[in-house]
Amino acid sequence: MAGKKVLIVYAHQEPRSFNGSLKKVAVEELSKQGCAITVSDLYAMDFEPRATRKDVIDRDLHLPVVIKTEEVMCGAQHLIGALSNPKFFNYGVEAYEAFKKRSLASDITDEQKKVQEADLVIFQNKLALLSLTTGGTAEMYGKTGVSGDFRYFLWPLQHGALHFCGFKVLAPQISFAPEIASEEERKAMVASWAQRLKTIWEEEPIDCTPAWYFGH
Amino acid sequence: MAGKKVLIVYAHQEPRSFNGSLKKVAVEELSKQGCAITVSDLYAMDFEPRATRKDVIDRDLHLPVVIKTEEVMCGAQHLIGALSNPKFFNYGVEAYEAFKKRSLASDITDEQKKVQEADLVIFQNKLALLSLTTGGTAEMYGKTGVSGDFRYFLWPLQHGALHFCGFKVLAPQISFAPEIASEEERKAMVASWAQRLKTIWEEEPIDCTPAWYFGH
Repeated sequence: MAGKKVLIVYAHQEPRSFNGSLKKVAVEELSKQGCAITVSDLYAMDFEPRATRKDVIDRDLHLPVVIKTEEVMCGAQHLIGALSNPKFFNYGVEAYEAFKKRSLASDITDEQKKVQEADLVIFQNKLALLSLTTGGTAEMYGKTGVSGDFRYFLWPLQHGALHFCGFKVLAPQISFAPEIASEEERKAMVASWAQRLKTIWEEEPIDCTPAWYFGH
Repeated sequence: MAGKKVLIVYAHQEPRSFNGSLKKVAVEELSKQGCAITVSDLYAMDFEPRATRKDVIDRDLHLPVVIKTEEVMCGAQHLIGALSNPKFFNYGVEAYEAFKKRSLASDITDEQKKVQEADLVIFQNKLALLSLTTGGTAEMYGKTGVSGDFRYFLWPLQHGALHFCGFKVLAPQISFAPEIASEEERKAMVASWAQRLKTIWEEEPIDCTPAWYFGH
């Protein structure tokens, strides 16, 4: 929908992969609609997933994101100076203090800014959608399948993170087992994702309650 | 139990934290029993959680684990030479090839070795136990609590990873909300963990089926 800002958080190492294709058609279809797209390509950005002291340093110190071994001692002194309790590192406390002082590491604040800007309406009205691929087939992710219902593994991320943070969650787009699918099947999966995106703004969010995950 | 080899995978930034105390009493109690303990202290090791090309390099090239910006171009050439398909990076394929050629990165093989050595019996008879702390209270992790039953979030790790890999899973040790507990309550939680470890070898594994997670 024209004017909408869309943030795609993309995590795959290979641009020519099936995941890369899904991202590509999403950018194409949503651009066609006049949306402004931002892609966070986590692997290409070498995004740091660890929650460490490096997240709460004072950015004005201009410490390198990757601290080399020989610099750790020197770096650590700067870091300790910036911590509210250097003797007992509590990530939650230090991250909150750094947030208040605006001294969170820039790789974190950059992503926060993208999330913040991703819509014009208030946070509680933001939409989120998980598009993911699996190794196993749809049968394996059935209720009696070896992996259990696919909704089970969505719980921590979709309910615990997205719903908890106030997102309205759209139905997930799950492309099952592209690796063992035929080229035609893969193309069909990409096409169906592109097709869905044409009317994505008309979709109603799921009822993101335990019943959706475990009650059927 | 004397002679048993125990691997503790520990992930917390602060040794003096509540999590640090739980790890400490486990090492103490199990050492007292005559077990051989190995601790993988993931934060202290700066363990790399990202699945990238760096995992499948030829160790003989002696590339640094942390590749500095100015070395990336040079490093990338070495890496590309070692990949079975440099034009299309498939992590699963490359990791399997590297596994066969014994060229997986040493931080990975070191951990694999610890898991392999952690028991004298065959893999399917290995025991695993998740000891974790929560931010929320036990009430919040009740079936009708805001976070949903705590068993829900255990599913991906405990069933999807541990059970899937053939571990027999012991009941999790969940210390709820140490951060808002009193000092006495925290001490009681640590003591109850130490107490449980005294008879840990007599415990029966849980019935790690969907019913355990979602059926009660």
